[in-house]
Amino acid sequence: MARVVVDVMLKPEILDPQGQAIVRKLPQLGFEGVTAVRQGKRFEIEVDGPADEAALEKARKIAETLLANTVIESFEVHAE
Amino acid sequence: MARVVVDVMLKPEILDPQGQAIVRKLPQLGFEGVTAVRQGKRFEIEVDGPADEAALEKARKIAETLLANTVIESFEVHAE
Repeated sequence: MARVVVDVMLKPEILDPQGQAIVRKLPQLGFEGVTAVRQGKRFEIEVDGPADEAALEKARKIAETLLANTVIESFEVHAE
Repeated sequence: MARVVVDVMLKPEILDPQGQAIVRKLPQLGFEGVTAVRQGKRFEIEVDGPADEAALEKARKIAETLLANTVIESFEVHAE
């Protein structure tokens, strides 16, 4: 059993209003020195078999098909 | 400038209907052998100063205060 993680983030050129809302709120909560926040998604996928290149390739295909909107989002895959 | 990542996931005992919906859809899309999916959030935080223990501790406090609902979610912090 392999655990593969897919991290999906908005591309840098895409506005992230959730992240901006967090940045603006932080000083009111007493947190200084945070200049940017980006919010994305993390998927933990359990795949039958070993955590090899085939498992990562399957996760990439799943991410492209279902987990990420590749017009506005990019993703990274790694075993964990 | 340090980049700190906060991963927020539902605790294992909390039902994750989004993850379950993904698992159920995958065979219809031709993806076999995926036994579980959990969906969570990933925050990329840019903090002034070095990526040291103080930056990680600040990110932990931000996560506890604002990013995670610690009743139902757990989080992990790491520099990147």
